[in-house]
Amino acid sequence: MFKRHLTKPDGRSLWLYARQPIPDGLAAPSPSAQPVAANSHLRWHPLRGEWIAYASHRQHRTFLPPPEWNPLAVTTDAAAPTEVPAGPWEVAVFENLFPTLTGLAHDPPESIVETRPGRGACEVVVFTQDPTASLGRLPLDRIALIIDVWADRYEALGARDDVDYVFPFENRGVEVGVTLHHPHGQIYAYPFVPPVAARELEQQKAFHDARGRGLLEDLLTREVADAARRVIYRGEHVLALVPVCARYPYEVWVAPMRPAPSLAALTSAERQDFARALKTVILKYDGLWQRPFPYIMAFHQAPTDGRPHPEAHVHVEFYPAYRMPNRLKYLAGSESGAGAFTADTLPEEKAKELAAVEVAID
Amino acid sequence: MFKRHLTKPDGRSLWLYARQPIPDGLAAPSPSAQPVAANSHLRWHPLRGEWIAYASHRQHRTFLPPPEWNPLAVTTDAAAPTEVPAGPWEVAVFENLFPTLTGLAHDPPESIVETRPGRGACEVVVFTQDPTASLGRLPLDRIALIIDVWADRYEALGARDDVDYVFPFENRGVEVGVTLHHPHGQIYAYPFVPPVAARELEQQKAFHDARGRGLLEDLLTREVADAARRVIYRGEHVLALVPVCARYPYEVWVAPMRPAPSLAALTSAERQDFARALKTVILKYDGLWQRPFPYIMAFHQAPTDGRPHPEAHVHVEFYPAYRMPNRLKYLAGSESGAGAFTADTLPEEKAKELAAVEVAID
Repeated sequence: MFKRHLTKPDGRSLWLYARQPIPDGLAAPSPSAQPVAANSHLRWHPLRGEWIAYASHRQHRTFLPPPEWNPLAVTTDAAAPTEVPAGPWEVAVFENLFPTLTGLAHDPPESIVETRPGRGACEVVVFTQDPTASLGRLPLDRIALIIDVWADRYEALGARDDVDYVFPFENRGVEVGVTLHHPHGQIYAYPFVPPVAARELEQQKAFHDARGRGLLEDLLTREVADAARRVIYRGEHVLALVPVCARYPYEVWVAPMRPAPSLAALTSAERQDFARALKTVILKYDGLWQRPFPYIMAFHQAPTDGRPHPEAHVHVEFYPAYRMPNRLKYLAGSESGAGAFTADTLPEEKAKELAAVEVAID
Repeated sequence: MFKRHLTKPDGRSLWLYARQPIPDGLAAPSPSAQPVAANSHLRWHPLRGEWIAYASHRQHRTFLPPPEWNPLAVTTDAAAPTEVPAGPWEVAVFENLFPTLTGLAHDPPESIVETRPGRGACEVVVFTQDPTASLGRLPLDRIALIIDVWADRYEALGARDDVDYVFPFENRGVEVGVTLHHPHGQIYAYPFVPPVAARELEQQKAFHDARGRGLLEDLLTREVADAARRVIYRGEHVLALVPVCARYPYEVWVAPMRPAPSLAALTSAERQDFARALKTVILKYDGLWQRPFPYIMAFHQAPTDGRPHPEAHVHVEFYPAYRMPNRLKYLAGSESGAGAFTADTLPEEKAKELAAVEVAID
């Protein structure tokens, strides 16, 4: 993998990645001319015991593009710069123009609860130059390159003092609030271990301390032993399945069988298999009702808080927006107010449906 | 408050409540003729350390009403029974026809994770006989009666062996998945303390153990001392405010200043004031953009798990669906995948907007 770092005229970073060398002389464009002056702060939520991030600068955006404008398309007209230059790159990562978390955060307000600067980072990952593609329809090798990029950003962001947790994700579809359809994901680098990860790691640590092996590793072994009846992809290294305890209809997890702590810890063969698993899952989703399937795709990795995390086991969780065609899964009273998920369908049934969708992987 | 218990022909319970005596001779209708045969089970989610409820009987509903039919309207035609009879009742509660949790739950399937019967209860609370009303537009005394009903159900359900937590809530608006617009709420009675409550109680207990007073009580005192600048209602006993650590734009909490553990523990004067606070909040919401304001309203009370909970402090949290007119607040990658809430606006600003909305309380 080749990588080139560029700095935008407003001070933000852009990284270009490709399997081939990236030539000199590319310049990083920006739709914004002013230097970035982002700021945000965190407040402690005493009842939930978690940090809430406030980026009120975001509402005073100086740059309000027209709805049809695509900032992730390559710049073709120097008078109308986008976020990425033309050139032979395959994947691009840049710092969000209006980040919720930023290394520039400073001077949190005084408050009746504890506050901190909203340090960390918010990055955009452009999966392809093709605005009409989707993650699942990209060639396997491109998806493997994106995994390499996520791994590279995990290491680079994780090495920062102000980053305790690196969280790549993709929101796909208007149903989850996406208005920009150029294929892309995001990376949030938090200055704390966020609540869901903290909770899972706590469970994983208790199991690991007691049993000397990983909780997810143990669960995956049981899933395979249970006639693999919820498994929808089984490669040499990586499994995709509707977990026995799915909270969402059609929820899918993708994980290596080996309890590697992060994408950065995966071998090249494991990454190839991970790419194939991701592609299989997304194409099965799209094939299920013969239309693009909106979801949230969330990575779970080891924190980068300087402590050892032998309990961590990298995996992806897909949360679909729909429970049936045209029926959204709402997170209403029980889910949002009490945190208790309820489902009208069984994971076994949804796994069977997904397993039956045939997909062609190049 | 007067109360009458009736049994529906399918075996489900109906309770009618009113300020005046309810006459003999009312019969409980049901849109379903078959005896209820609900079943559901819980599975342990090892990574999150929580129970997920599966009620797959719900998808095989034998009764599929037309979309315009209102099962919460009083029965006027014996050939087309609804869920409630005509008569001089003011508030009605009945067991859901297709409950996610039910005292009838039995024989959970064997699984690779721990399973349990999905015991507990799911009840519907009909706020009024008027299908065109809304909770906020009901007279103060009716809202106070509804509080009495919630308190009564808290005690009755909480006394059951299979109920560890009683959770009244209201989902309002199509934006949170509500298709039935007759004013109503629900009560879920869980056989476990659900994750959000468990987490909050853990924080509250640690504070209470260390300081000998309540965490929410302490926060409310600070809120008032902070020039009450996020307070939108201040009665003799009850406060409504946008909390300093709001996760949602326009999030509002309603709580008594006194750390009463549940609605059942509130005095009559506190309940009156609570009713006034609820009405004020909802009318401010509706007045903000001059249209019905969709939300999730979630109660937090002491568990009914047989243990003492001096740390508990009853309160309501409102989670609005919108962050701006026509702009939904999506729970996307950071919120759903990592549990980290981010906001583009400050609680102080949203509190100022709500405080400025004038409402007339009878």
